[in-house]
Amino acid sequence: VEKGRVEAFSDGVFAIAITLLVLVFLEQHFEEGNLGSELTALWPSYLAYVLTFFTIGITWVNHNAIFRHLAAVDRTLLYLNIALLVPNVFLPFPTQLLAEFIRTDDARDAALVYGCTMTVMALLFNAVWHYAAWGRRLLASDVDEREVSGITRSYAPGPIIYGLATLLAFASPVASAIAYGLIALVYVSTSIWGSENPAR
Amino acid sequence: VEKGRVEAFSDGVFAIAITLLVLVFLEQHFEEGNLGSELTALWPSYLAYVLTFFTIGITWVNHNAIFRHLAAVDRTLLYLNIALLVPNVFLPFPTQLLAEFIRTDDARDAALVYGCTMTVMALLFNAVWHYAAWGRRLLASDVDEREVSGITRSYAPGPIIYGLATLLAFASPVASAIAYGLIALVYVSTSIWGSENPAR
Amino acid sequence: VEKGRVEAFSDGVFAIAITLLVLVFLEQHFEEGNLGSELTALWPSYLAYVLTFFTIGITWVNHNAIFRHLAAVDRTLLYLNIALLVPNVFLPFPTQLLAEFIRTDDARDAALVYGCTMTVMALLFNAVWHYAAWGRRLLASDVDEREVSGITRSYAPGPIIYGLATLLAFASPVASAIAYGLIALVYVSTSIWGSENPAR
Amino acid sequence: VEKGRVEAFSDGVFAIAITLLVLVFLEQHFEEGNLGSELTALWPSYLAYVLTFFTIGITWVNHNAIFRHLAAVDRTLLYLNIALLVPNVFLPFPTQLLAEFIRTDDARDAALVYGCTMTVMALLFNAVWHYAAWGRRLLASDVDEREVSGITRSYAPGPIIYGLATLLAFASPVASAIAYGLIALVYVSTSIWGSENPAR
Repeated sequence: VEKGRVEAFSDGVFAIAITLLVLVFLEQHFEEGNLGSELTALWPSYLAYVLTFFTIGITWVNHNAIFRHLAAVDRTLLYLNIALLVPNVFLPFPTQLLAEFIRTDDARDAALVYGCTMTVMALLFNAVWHYAAWGRRLLASDVDEREVSGITRSYAPGPIIYGLATLLAFASPVASAIAYGLIALVYVSTSIWGSENPAR
Repeated sequence: VEKGRVEAFSDGVFAIAITLLVLVFLEQHFEEGNLGSELTALWPSYLAYVLTFFTIGITWVNHNAIFRHLAAVDRTLLYLNIALLVPNVFLPFPTQLLAEFIRTDDARDAALVYGCTMTVMALLFNAVWHYAAWGRRLLASDVDEREVSGITRSYAPGPIIYGLATLLAFASPVASAIAYGLIALVYVSTSIWGSENPAR
Repeated sequence: VEKGRVEAFSDGVFAIAITLLVLVFLEQHFEEGNLGSELTALWPSYLAYVLTFFTIGITWVNHNAIFRHLAAVDRTLLYLNIALLVPNVFLPFPTQLLAEFIRTDDARDAALVYGCTMTVMALLFNAVWHYAAWGRRLLASDVDEREVSGITRSYAPGPIIYGLATLLAFASPVASAIAYGLIALVYVSTSIWGSENPAR
Repeated sequence: VEKGRVEAFSDGVFAIAITLLVLVFLEQHFEEGNLGSELTALWPSYLAYVLTFFTIGITWVNHNAIFRHLAAVDRTLLYLNIALLVPNVFLPFPTQLLAEFIRTDDARDAALVYGCTMTVMALLFNAVWHYAAWGRRLLASDVDEREVSGITRSYAPGPIIYGLATLLAFASPVASAIAYGLIALVYVSTSIWGSENPAR
């Protein structure tokens, strides 16, 4: 039961985070007589909106994968889970910064904020998983040991990859932004191809 | 379990999308001494608000219908589902554009954005359903073959109908806007009359 | 299952509607050096915020009561339910109008908009219930006939009471606003005292 | 079933409340050419954002703990629960006030509003629990009497602690703000160390 409420609460938070960027559009004011070109000029925001959907979608899928292996949750996991939601809900803000400033002199700062947020998120995913899997503390008894080490291996490179993409911003913010998009794309692709069985 | 979380997450996203347009009202500033006529002048926004409720309501009912037939979800379906949520959450923005610009020279652009969003959504509904139903990949074993082809047939005309209503905007944006409203109305009516048994 | 998703979706929409008015506070800009008195001057907004919580809370409790008696939902009920959510999500807007304009010459218009929204909501509650209970169409088989007519009787006066409180605005908007608050207060009190058994 | 819907509704409300402060960032307008230092100057808002996450996270964990012990809910508990949500959803507003005004002459007023909100919340937690536990009115039959008095004891000091931290604002608003942060920190720590068994 308790575990179900943690999932329900997290689902609600993910659902809100994924929709936040559309507020940027709703609050835009457009001049009459020029709507078409004003809408076209917003293209980085459309990209940012789709990127948010898939990035938070990926973290939600990962969150799912972790919780499916848990038999129980304890207080430490509850608070680690809340900590994990902090960068997720924050993410629409750096994404919008990236969209707004990527073509300006402030591109580097925007790319750094985005990258740091994602690096922290990747670290927290490792923390949540290691806490749950340590000595099989919270794992369900029917979870295969190979599956456990598979998840452990798949989360390990996250902070390094995002850390490197963040550092890339010092050389080229645009390259860094492209890297963020590519990481999401690669993740979705391998996630689709790497999964064996549909989850029931 | 997994399927339940996909539904819960999607329900949350639909619930937020359906409520977004009320923010347009909450952020309005009214001059004192003239409230009545200022409120009356907002009538296209009231229509847009109700249209959003029923259009997203319809897509939620459809989403429901698809998932009721699934025995399982896999990663590809997870990401197709996230893709399907992209235009749903976006929809309040073109709806508000339509309300704001239908009486101006920008009416055509607003009608085009709305129509394209709906056409993409109709395409994605077909994609999700075809992916799930292909060789009965993810369907529950007790789903009747006739029911499957019934759903397939009912989704097929969506992109064409919305595509034509979108093209209508080149001739008359107002006609296009009326078409969008009528499609929703016809859909709700046939959906009510066409359904045989209450879902338990 | 289907019924569970209708409840989950409606719960999400109610949860968002009930929280919308806090955005009015978050978007307020305060001058430095005068925070205390600026915060105090917002007292009608605090009242409006609490009124929203309890009014939407009451409709949520009623929604609960209706759905607890249903064995199934059909398409018509789905769309009636969506129609019922329209004034619920809208309600924070007239509530805020009431708070903002009750001390101005526009008080009457604000009170009328609030009253009409509540009257429509009361009508829709009757519509949903009568549709479900007509010939016991969607009722669970173990629902007592006396309970059914009890609910029918309890919903019937709603539109009349709110209609009269709305008309009161032509004589005195303040009296009308007080009536809205009193109706909510009386409803909560009788609801607490009138219920026999805790729902499990 | 009913109890499940109260939990689902409350989870939705908590999920929204916890994400509200990110809107403050999304609505910020930044000057070009100075993004880095403008983002740095927002540090009290970042702290406020994290404080909101953990404070509302704590109340959600407490809410969880109460409801896990209930066998049933009645109408009075429903409305007490709605009352409890009022300060929770409101909390992001005083938190943001604290972040914005802690370095100004208005710091005291901001600290007072935050403290009063938390004191009211602590009082309402006691009210909800005492109502449910009085004569074991709504408790599940397998709940241990020692557990009941353990929860009673753990909630009792809340209003006093927050009341004192609030009064501290008259001496030093900064000390008061630090106290609010410390209370949350101590709470999370003792909550993690004090819990025996993972909840299944």
